[in-house]
Amino acid sequence: MRICWFNDNRLGVVKGDTVFDVSKVLEKLPKPTYPASRHGDTLIANLAALRGDLEAAATGTGIPAASVKFLSPVAAPTKIIGTPTNYHDHIAEAAKQSDVFTYKRPSSNIDDQGLFLKANSSLIGAGEPVRLRFPDRRSDHEMELGVIIGKKASNIRLEDALSCVAGYAIALDMVVRGSQDRSMRKSIDTYAVLGPWMVTADEVPNPSVLGFSLAVNGVTKQKSNTKDMIMTIERQIQFASEYYTLLPGDIIMTGTPSGVSQVKPGDVMHCEIDTIAAMDVRITADE
Amino acid sequence: MRICWFNDNRLGVVKGDTVFDVSKVLEKLPKPTYPASRHGDTLIANLAALRGDLEAAATGTGIPAASVKFLSPVAAPTKIIGTPTNYHDHIAEAAKQSDVFTYKRPSSNIDDQGLFLKANSSLIGAGEPVRLRFPDRRSDHEMELGVIIGKKASNIRLEDALSCVAGYAIALDMVVRGSQDRSMRKSIDTYAVLGPWMVTADEVPNPSVLGFSLAVNGVTKQKSNTKDMIMTIERQIQFASEYYTLLPGDIIMTGTPSGVSQVKPGDVMHCEIDTIAAMDVRITADE
Repeated sequence: MRICWFNDNRLGVVKGDTVFDVSKVLEKLPKPTYPASRHGDTLIANLAALRGDLEAAATGTGIPAASVKFLSPVAAPTKIIGTPTNYHDHIAEAAKQSDVFTYKRPSSNIDDQGLFLKANSSLIGAGEPVRLRFPDRRSDHEMELGVIIGKKASNIRLEDALSCVAGYAIALDMVVRGSQDRSMRKSIDTYAVLGPWMVTADEVPNPSVLGFSLAVNGVTKQKSNTKDMIMTIERQIQFASEYYTLLPGDIIMTGTPSGVSQVKPGDVMHCEIDTIAAMDVRITADE
Repeated sequence: MRICWFNDNRLGVVKGDTVFDVSKVLEKLPKPTYPASRHGDTLIANLAALRGDLEAAATGTGIPAASVKFLSPVAAPTKIIGTPTNYHDHIAEAAKQSDVFTYKRPSSNIDDQGLFLKANSSLIGAGEPVRLRFPDRRSDHEMELGVIIGKKASNIRLEDALSCVAGYAIALDMVVRGSQDRSMRKSIDTYAVLGPWMVTADEVPNPSVLGFSLAVNGVTKQKSNTKDMIMTIERQIQFASEYYTLLPGDIIMTGTPSGVSQVKPGDVMHCEIDTIAAMDVRITADE
């Protein structure tokens, strides 16, 4: 199933080129409370129970997908996690341009490097533009597979890791280059794109063999396959859970291959991941 | 006014040694919705409007403060921000122990270093123990002034920065030493302590001149004054807002002075900040 948020916080199910408005299913969610206990994103936490309702509601004429504004398919993540240097070819390009890339030491040992965080306030969907906040600095696209956690997980076993996944989406880990801490440079408003929808895990039998590519204005810049990841998806989930509790809706951006390049206002990034989706994301100047 | 969350998500106002349960005021908050628009923590966002109601509700016999379990005075922050190397004496101690501290380059130039993030899932209050997740690794206390943002702020002017502050609390930026990204090592569950309550900004006329200290098991380890900060509180708020939108309830941990040291299960950290509060926080093994 393909689940999305669109327009003015409408919940949708996507079939082919059509979005079905299933917002009425939201009434079946537990009543929102404040302060909520820390259960993560409410919809993702209750997705299994609502699956049948979502299927049943996805009927009627629907709306052409091309006409909706896709928001992030996770409405309220509690954290966004990034995996650095997870493709050998990206490490090589970073090592060659030490004036641009500021890895302490581009390295394939991610256990030593650790994962990083992006601010939740940076998250947008495919229908919203990436706004370049520092026009005089280099901002790059980093295209990745996005993994959306489906249940609470702490210190989990490797063999249980994929059972914690709710689904997958295309992720753009946008970054402004510079000397500042990665968790700041990658947390600018609009610098985390997730979309266009979440494909539930049951429809992605092997997330570790997915071709993907990104083109800017029609020119291919990044082209790789998740099989080339250095740290597997399972180990990324386990590794994160060794430090902190993962909650439903938490997002892991699983690392980018080579070909990251600067974007400018007016550019359009076309992203595709096998089985998941394709999406176009615009770059604009910040106002 | 001193505002706290305590026991089973009760809202309190603290006067002297007494906590008054003012939870009924929560009924005046806007009804929780899902997905919420991104307005930050609901109580902090509506604090100015509820101030009179909170005052009025803080009557009766109350509960001895010593008998309640203090939770984080911010129930649902959207981000927790840390300021590195903000006291010269801490930079000096870090530079002397490069085997323990992993700053890329301990430096007083925080504009170049940038701020970092801690996971929201790491947040606890003074009444909850810090649980050491890696018993074989060194975990340290880093005591700091915690600044709680009161309103949405983006690209704000230096002279407006303090007007964005809802209040102040004691903050412990706990950390496990190692090579991993700071945003991972400082995000372990329970490694962000905020408490015991928030003192509203009107009661802290000059947050930039506050003495503070931390003792472990009665032995003073850290003793300093916020006037020794390298980057001012105003500039930290402005700097953060240059990258991302600050939201009500966002927390800035403003940096630690020298004296950070290892903690072990059974230790008790006694923390004090002039005008704000004193609190004891226990260290336990993780289960």
